[in-house]
Amino acid sequence: MYYFDHAASSFPKPHEVGEAMKEAVDLYAANPGRGGHTLSQKAAAIVKEARTEIASLFKVPKNEHVWFYQNATMALNQAILGYPFEEGDHILVTVYEHNSVLRPIKMLELEKGVRVTYVKPNELDEFDLDDFESQLTEQTKMVVVTHASNITGSIFPVAEFGLRLEKHQAIFVVDASQTAGKLNISMEHDHIDLLAFAGHKGLLGPQGTGVLISKHDYQLAPLIHGGTGTSSEEDVQPLTWPERYEAGTLNTPGIAGLLAGVKAVKLKGIDAIFEHEEALMKQFIEGISNVEDIQMVGQTSVENRVSVVSFHVKHVPSHEVAMILDSSYQIAVRAGLHCAPRAHQHLDTIQEGLVRVSFGPYNTEEEVKQLVNALHEIVEAFSM
Amino acid sequence: MYYFDHAASSFPKPHEVGEAMKEAVDLYAANPGRGGHTLSQKAAAIVKEARTEIASLFKVPKNEHVWFYQNATMALNQAILGYPFEEGDHILVTVYEHNSVLRPIKMLELEKGVRVTYVKPNELDEFDLDDFESQLTEQTKMVVVTHASNITGSIFPVAEFGLRLEKHQAIFVVDASQTAGKLNISMEHDHIDLLAFAGHKGLLGPQGTGVLISKHDYQLAPLIHGGTGTSSEEDVQPLTWPERYEAGTLNTPGIAGLLAGVKAVKLKGIDAIFEHEEALMKQFIEGISNVEDIQMVGQTSVENRVSVVSFHVKHVPSHEVAMILDSSYQIAVRAGLHCAPRAHQHLDTIQEGLVRVSFGPYNTEEEVKQLVNALHEIVEAFSM
Repeated sequence: MYYFDHAASSFPKPHEVGEAMKEAVDLYAANPGRGGHTLSQKAAAIVKEARTEIASLFKVPKNEHVWFYQNATMALNQAILGYPFEEGDHILVTVYEHNSVLRPIKMLELEKGVRVTYVKPNELDEFDLDDFESQLTEQTKMVVVTHASNITGSIFPVAEFGLRLEKHQAIFVVDASQTAGKLNISMEHDHIDLLAFAGHKGLLGPQGTGVLISKHDYQLAPLIHGGTGTSSEEDVQPLTWPERYEAGTLNTPGIAGLLAGVKAVKLKGIDAIFEHEEALMKQFIEGISNVEDIQMVGQTSVENRVSVVSFHVKHVPSHEVAMILDSSYQIAVRAGLHCAPRAHQHLDTIQEGLVRVSFGPYNTEEEVKQLVNALHEIVEAFSM
Repeated sequence: MYYFDHAASSFPKPHEVGEAMKEAVDLYAANPGRGGHTLSQKAAAIVKEARTEIASLFKVPKNEHVWFYQNATMALNQAILGYPFEEGDHILVTVYEHNSVLRPIKMLELEKGVRVTYVKPNELDEFDLDDFESQLTEQTKMVVVTHASNITGSIFPVAEFGLRLEKHQAIFVVDASQTAGKLNISMEHDHIDLLAFAGHKGLLGPQGTGVLISKHDYQLAPLIHGGTGTSSEEDVQPLTWPERYEAGTLNTPGIAGLLAGVKAVKLKGIDAIFEHEEALMKQFIEGISNVEDIQMVGQTSVENRVSVVSFHVKHVPSHEVAMILDSSYQIAVRAGLHCAPRAHQHLDTIQEGLVRVSFGPYNTEEEVKQLVNALHEIVEAFSM
C-alpha cells in the first residue's frame, strides 16, 4: 500500500502514537481531574503535558489557552459559532475554506443575519492584500483564512493578512489543518487570534483529536455545556480555562497519542519534514508535467506550497482514477470535492471534482515513482 | 492499585480495547469515507460494525440512528440543545441529572425562555409516577431522566416513565451513562426516544467516545457544522444520517476500542456483570454498615441499584478520605459533588460532598475486603 492521502489523515503514524494510546488505555484509563486519585492525576499530567507541548509549538504563553476537541471541525465551530456576533456583523473568508468553516458561517448568515464576503485569489493562488483590506468594514468582526489549500496546496500569507488586520477590530481565525506540523506557526508573530487544527494530519496524532488555541479572551460562548470537574455547584459553565470550553470527559488516549505525534514531529524537525515532502512533490510534478492528459490545477511550482497536488485526468472521471489506483496499484489518493466546494467552483472543477495526492514524512522517492508510473499507465490505457 | 471509580471511567479495560485502538492507528489510520481507498474503507467498516453492534445492544433497527461523539456530554447536548424548543416550552428533569444535562437546560432557560421543572424522588429514591405525570403539560416538550444516579446508584424506572409519556407529546431522553453495559436497555420496550451514554464506563471502551441514539426523527438541529464526506457541494449539513449529526473526522481508533469493549461486555454477559458487581456492592455495604461513623446516603439496600455507593465519614472531609485511601492504601475512589449538584442539594450534602465508591466487572472480593478494612482503619484513626 502506497499512501498519498495525508491531507485527509497522515499514515502511517510514528509507532509511539499507538503505543502511547495503548498505554493510556491499559495503564491509566481514569478521568483526568484535579486532586483525584493517582490514576486520575497521571491522566491529568499527560493532558497537561500535551497542552504545554502544543502551546510551545505555536508560541502561546499559557497552556490553558489550548483546548482539545474531537476534530478541527469542532474546534472551528467553537471559534466561529462561539463568537458573540450580532445581526449586521460582517465576516470575511477565502473561497478556499473547508466546509468546517463554510457551513458554520452559513448558519450565522441564515440564523443571525451576519453578512459574509468570500475573497478569491488570482489564478496563481495569490491574494491581493490591498483588495483584501479594502473589504474590511467597521462591521467586520472576524476574518477566517485557511493557512494552505487542501486542494492546490498553496500556502497563504497569514502573517501578512494578520498584519493588515492589526489596525482593524476583526479577530483573525486561521485554519491550520493543512500546515500544523509542516510549517512553523507563531500565533504572536503571525498576529493570529484563534488557531484551529486537526491532530491527525501533519502533527501525526490519531483521529479523534482537534485543537483550538485562543491567544486572548474573545468572549467566546461555550458550544457544549456540562461537567467540568471543578465548580460543579455552578449551573452554568465556569469561567476558568480550559474547563469553560471543554465540557465532559476528554479523549485522554487520543491526547496521549497526539502528544507522541507532536514529539515525533519535533524530533524529525518541521523544516526537515517540509523539505522532504517538498522534494517528493517536486518529483511528482515533474513526473506528470509532460503528460498532456493530466491537468494540474492551481500553480505548478512548488513555491509557497505544502505537499498537496490536485489534477484531472482527461476522459477519466476522478473517482475512477482513484478507484483504479486503489484496486490495481494499491495506491491511496482522494478524489472528489475534498469538502471545499467554493474552491472547486473557483477552480471550475465543481462538476467532476479532482484527484488529489498529498505527501507525508514517511513517503519515499520509490513510492512516488510508482505513483507516477501508475498514472502514466492509466492515461495510456484510456487514450487508446 | 485497587480501583473503585468505575462510575467515572471503568478500569482496567479488556486488553482487546487497547489492542483494537493500536491496530486502528497502526494499520488503518485513514479517514472513513464511502468509495474511498482500501484503508478508508477498512476504517468505515469498523465504524459501521460498531454502529451495528450498538444498535443491536439497545434494540434500535437502524445503525445510522447511532451517532458518535467525544463524550456523553456532547451526545446529551446534541439531544437537548438540538431540539427545536420555542419560548414557553417546558422541560421536566429529575434532580439527579448530571451537569451534562443541567447545564444545557439552564442555557435553554436563560436564552430561549424554556421553563424547567425538577422532580425529586422520596428518601428511598422512589419517584411518584402519578405526581410525575401530573406535572406534564401541553407545553412539556422533553423529559430527561438519568437511568441511574451516579451518586446513590438508584436505578430509576425508565420503562414506567416512558409508558406514562406515551400519551403525551413530550419526547423522552434517557441518560444511560451509569447503566449502558450494566442493564439491558431496549429503546423500543422502554419507550425511549433519545438515548445517550458514555463509551468509557460500563461499555468498557476508551475515553473519547460517547453515543446518542435517536429512535425516530425529532428534527434535531445539528450542533456542529462541517465536512461530511458526502454532499460536499451543499452549504448546509446534509439531511442524511448519520452524516447530518457527525460533522468532521470521527474518532476511528476510539470507536474501534469501543467496539472491542462492547464485544467484551456481550461475551461476559450484561446480567453476569450486574450480578458480579451487585455481590461486591452487597459485601461492601455489609462491611461498612456496622460502622457508626460512616453514613451512607440514599437507600442502603442493593435492590434497584447499580454498584455505586456514596457516604460521608464523620469528622473527616470527603476529599481527605479519598486522599488517604489513595496515598496510604493505593485505593482509588472519587470524592466531591460528582457533577450532580442538585442531587447533593436534595441529599443535603452540597457543602461537604461525599465519598463515592463504584464497582466494575474486574473488581474482586479481596479488593473490596481491602477497601472495607482501609475505611475501618481511617474511622478508627480519626475517632481517637
